[in-house]
Amino acid sequence: MKKIAVITAGGIGNRMGIDTPKQFLLLAGKPLLWHCIQSFLTAFNDIDFILILPAHYLDGAEALIADLQIGHRTTIVAGGSTRFHSVQNGLKKIEEPAVIFVHDGVRCLVSPNLIKRCYEQTMQTGSAIPAVVSTDSIRLDQGGYSQSIDRNLVHIVQTPQTFLSELLLPAFEQDYCDSFTDEATVVEAAGKKVALIEGEYRNIKITRPVDLLMAEMLLAEKG
Amino acid sequence: MKKIAVITAGGIGNRMGIDTPKQFLLLAGKPLLWHCIQSFLTAFNDIDFILILPAHYLDGAEALIADLQIGHRTTIVAGGSTRFHSVQNGLKKIEEPAVIFVHDGVRCLVSPNLIKRCYEQTMQTGSAIPAVVSTDSIRLDQGGYSQSIDRNLVHIVQTPQTFLSELLLPAFEQDYCDSFTDEATVVEAAGKKVALIEGEYRNIKITRPVDLLMAEMLLAEKG
Repeated sequence: MKKIAVITAGGIGNRMGIDTPKQFLLLAGKPLLWHCIQSFLTAFNDIDFILILPAHYLDGAEALIADLQIGHRTTIVAGGSTRFHSVQNGLKKIEEPAVIFVHDGVRCLVSPNLIKRCYEQTMQTGSAIPAVVSTDSIRLDQGGYSQSIDRNLVHIVQTPQTFLSELLLPAFEQDYCDSFTDEATVVEAAGKKVALIEGEYRNIKITRPVDLLMAEMLLAEKG
Repeated sequence: MKKIAVITAGGIGNRMGIDTPKQFLLLAGKPLLWHCIQSFLTAFNDIDFILILPAHYLDGAEALIADLQIGHRTTIVAGGSTRFHSVQNGLKKIEEPAVIFVHDGVRCLVSPNLIKRCYEQTMQTGSAIPAVVSTDSIRLDQGGYSQSIDRNLVHIVQTPQTFLSELLLPAFEQDYCDSFTDEATVVEAAGKKVALIEGEYRNIKITRPVDLLMAEMLLAEKG
């Protein structure tokens, strides 16, 4: 089936304390976004890309696209005011049935293996949301006092959140709601269930300077 | 009120791939456990310590205790088969009313400020459980399919878990149960509620080699 990776790189990275959008920071000499795209290419050599970039930074990906030689199968789209609006902008470019991977551009250590497993699960159940079980105790706040939850039931959600287009595209026609923190919540609000699959602890999100150093270590460990 | 820090350092650290118990690994030239104790001493110069160590490593803390000059107010206890049994062993040494801080020996970056806030909250409400709000989306597993939870309600629990002795000591007279993942769950099983307070994102737990490198970076950032 057709495969499309929608990579959300529209953030402006104010937690990093720098001007460069964080998805363009360098890890082992290449932008974070490069590492994401490379993993998708390793998983599937017939995949297309929709890159969602900050509106003022649309030209910033040109060198990267040339380097990866994906110009012929890449569409660039400007980000919106929220993740929902950014992804919605990207999904408008999709016109044929596909498996759609929506991926955080700052999860640069995603493995080709995880991407393939997301595809296979989606072909079976319509969706695949990678998540890892919490290794910490978790509690739910209940107005000052709190209640514990069995941590084996608590899943920390990652990306690529993967869906059949027939499930994802109609869900993104809904009006925006504050509870839309990721694509899974959008699909659920449209009355559909989503399937979890085992994520990877190393599939971290780079949001603070310390995360970038951590990614360097994890990459060195692997190399 | 009397203050006692029960520091759980009974683990044998098999995830680190080394023989040294991880609470004795060095950070900036001092064992992790040293950093924990130092923070409690900075918070309260009249605090006593109960150190829970691996049974085969009871002598391993001698140099550390001498270095910190806390021999006169430190009791060493052997760890048990679970965290519950380890803490239970330590609590048996407490005979007078106190504020008891139960702290992971591998959370070496706990700040004196957090320790003081735990004390103050406990004097008001009987307990204080530091926790940070999740920055990731969280889902609850429901047999293959899953359901999202508002992440603002999801708290990742840290230590020192702090209690009045009149609340904590009777709770630890219960029979052991698999759901006792920390002291808060033990106290709740005894029919009491616990109060959450704002933890610190840098108050990380050192369980893998990469965590130790992260702690070094966080320490350098602070210094």
